[in-house]
Amino acid sequence: MTKYNDLAGKKTGRIEALSDGVFAIALTLLVLEIKVPDIPVHSEAELFRLFIGIAPRFLSYFLSFMTMGIFWNGQSVQLSYMKEYNRDLTWNTLFFLLLVSLLPFTTAFLGAYITFRFALLLYWLNIFLLGLVLYLHWGLALKKKFVSLEGEALAEADKAIRRRIVTAQALYLAGALMCFISIYLSIGFIILVQLNYAFAFFAGRGLQKKKNRTDAT
Amino acid sequence: MTKYNDLAGKKTGRIEALSDGVFAIALTLLVLEIKVPDIPVHSEAELFRLFIGIAPRFLSYFLSFMTMGIFWNGQSVQLSYMKEYNRDLTWNTLFFLLLVSLLPFTTAFLGAYITFRFALLLYWLNIFLLGLVLYLHWGLALKKKFVSLEGEALAEADKAIRRRIVTAQALYLAGALMCFISIYLSIGFIILVQLNYAFAFFAGRGLQKKKNRTDAT
Amino acid sequence: MTKYNDLAGKKTGRIEALSDGVFAIALTLLVLEIKVPDIPVHSEAELFRLFIGIAPRFLSYFLSFMTMGIFWNGQSVQLSYMKEYNRDLTWNTLFFLLLVSLLPFTTAFLGAYITFRFALLLYWLNIFLLGLVLYLHWGLALKKKFVSLEGEALAEADKAIRRRIVTAQALYLAGALMCFISIYLSIGFIILVQLNYAFAFFAGRGLQKKKNRTDAT
Amino acid sequence: MTKYNDLAGKKTGRIEALSDGVFAIALTLLVLEIKVPDIPVHSEAELFRLFIGIAPRFLSYFLSFMTMGIFWNGQSVQLSYMKEYNRDLTWNTLFFLLLVSLLPFTTAFLGAYITFRFALLLYWLNIFLLGLVLYLHWGLALKKKFVSLEGEALAEADKAIRRRIVTAQALYLAGALMCFISIYLSIGFIILVQLNYAFAFFAGRGLQKKKNRTDAT
Repeated sequence: MTKYNDLAGKKTGRIEALSDGVFAIALTLLVLEIKVPDIPVHSEAELFRLFIGIAPRFLSYFLSFMTMGIFWNGQSVQLSYMKEYNRDLTWNTLFFLLLVSLLPFTTAFLGAYITFRFALLLYWLNIFLLGLVLYLHWGLALKKKFVSLEGEALAEADKAIRRRIVTAQALYLAGALMCFISIYLSIGFIILVQLNYAFAFFAGRGLQKKKNRTDAT
Repeated sequence: MTKYNDLAGKKTGRIEALSDGVFAIALTLLVLEIKVPDIPVHSEAELFRLFIGIAPRFLSYFLSFMTMGIFWNGQSVQLSYMKEYNRDLTWNTLFFLLLVSLLPFTTAFLGAYITFRFALLLYWLNIFLLGLVLYLHWGLALKKKFVSLEGEALAEADKAIRRRIVTAQALYLAGALMCFISIYLSIGFIILVQLNYAFAFFAGRGLQKKKNRTDAT
Repeated sequence: MTKYNDLAGKKTGRIEALSDGVFAIALTLLVLEIKVPDIPVHSEAELFRLFIGIAPRFLSYFLSFMTMGIFWNGQSVQLSYMKEYNRDLTWNTLFFLLLVSLLPFTTAFLGAYITFRFALLLYWLNIFLLGLVLYLHWGLALKKKFVSLEGEALAEADKAIRRRIVTAQALYLAGALMCFISIYLSIGFIILVQLNYAFAFFAGRGLQKKKNRTDAT
Repeated sequence: MTKYNDLAGKKTGRIEALSDGVFAIALTLLVLEIKVPDIPVHSEAELFRLFIGIAPRFLSYFLSFMTMGIFWNGQSVQLSYMKEYNRDLTWNTLFFLLLVSLLPFTTAFLGAYITFRFALLLYWLNIFLLGLVLYLHWGLALKKKFVSLEGEALAEADKAIRRRIVTAQALYLAGALMCFISIYLSIGFIILVQLNYAFAFFAGRGLQKKKNRTDAT
């Protein structure tokens, strides 16, 4: 029995290492695309304008980076609670990584065709599927009793993890639906949601402390 | 003696980390190639058609991704049983990684020349060699007594691992030979085999539970 | 309580693995860009001149590599002292990695527009932000009592880590300001500062030993 | 004291992870460059000729891969014996990784200008510097008493590691000097030396077992 646990533990180690590799590539992918322009420049002002011209690509990179960070944290928390792991969870994570590796594409696609609803809905679909696979991962792990927590702690972590995914996805869906009013409103709202999840530590500290100590983000 | 085991353990750690790095790159390689098209678009319908135009590349990416996942799992299981490791096994794994890094090329080559038997046989050769090197890896580890299992458990794991590789390779060979009837039949059959190994968790759960608990996939 | 520490420990493991992945990509990024020229050559002398023509790109690569090494070491030391970790520190590190992934761009931008102050100040800004985020990381970890040292050892490590960042950043700022006298003076000075931090082990060994044993670099 | 060891151990972990990341990228770099040709083809024979046309790039990839494997093993053995690690050794390894990341370039440069001595000597210089840095790494670790072995075991490992590097480098030098007779002789000889170090496990097994059990390769 002990041996089997060791094996399972090792397996979590490998899927974590693979995840970190895929995330590292996905995190840097959009910045790899930003090439230094090969245009002769004759003054400081001209160079500054040249830089401003490629600046939107940094914004797109920043957006993709935040989204990656949010999902890396989400997966990280779940995996940190696994005392065992199996083939089904491994394939769930592999599909999660497939969706992670697609995010730089859907982000760049949105950046290139920002006035079209189709680009926005494709981007939203990517985020929705990431949330869905993560939600199924947790459910599967609970069902198989692979989560290392028990009793009260388990119930609290369970509630925190599910609530986080459902709330975030509800907000993303609301944001996506806004595209039928205005695409810029829709994008703006989604970016605000992501900024909130990434920068939450700049706000509401006091409140958060009073709430759930095992709050999983 | 203890020191030597520690050393060997550490060595497995490094080859696992190197493998995860190579797999992470190979897993994301085909998606790196899918660039956002730089074509002006004037309507939602036009953008949708543009996306449909590049959609086959996502299918090719998905196929390569599944194959990677299957072999990553296969290698992961074997390495998780190693209590020692040596230079010969290290070089075996290095050649395995060489073949892994070639898979995105052979997959893309098949995608580009899908009506030609040569492209299909090259793709099959890559998968065959991956299976062969993995089979030799297990044999070598058994011969050197590096596998951490004993008695009944060893015999069962041994049988499960060998049977899995031989069965899969027999199916791949059958699929490859079908190209002399029809290339599309051949590709379709190989994709079905891979879908089965990747998605097996959606089917035959009950049966599987009754069978071998140490079934290694 | 023990469980929570295990969890936190695991979390440091993942952020370290993600950091090493991002650093590995950033470290090799500029060398990825150096392509073998596709120009026919008719003599040894001609080939030598061709190589000399692309040699400046190796210098730029070397500069970026040293800077990466300096910040990798700085982050590595801080993380090695963390007995716990949380969400805020994770996001701090994620932003650190964002800045790391931008360094190859700002270095190449400086290489391409080396006669312009704007390129130099952009490069300096990248280094400044890296130092700032690293400084905030340490402060945050201290405030949360996540650092594994106590008493005298903590005080000494704290002093060494803060002094190192502040001194280095003061030197970088001085170097950046020199660009209002001469850009080449400015670049030369910054390179000297980086060479000093990278190659310090070739000089002042005796002195350093007498000083602080817990000197963190 | 225990705390300092823990810290040092952690540091070896990070430099190993960084090394595996850089090696994973360097190992796959030349294969990333092999693109599927975008040329219409009308028969199996034509496709076969197209493939034969790009086949030399696979040979170049294979050569680079073997060299990487040899140096990865060499570094892996040394790091597996470190019970402590410090800043000087870290920078030594960083320069080792710099040279590793240059190897795909020097290999491709040799492939492109295979009839020129300059290309061959540049390739040799890269291999020579890799060996030199690895040799200095071991010397530095011994001097600082960071090697985890003692007495007889240390003396034997020391002899095996030094002899391996010196013998290999003497053979590479001999190969490089042959370029003044004939470049193809020179390249052929170097490839034979590398094949020998990579495939040694196919020959001389019996002999090797009788010799040194702690033989480090």
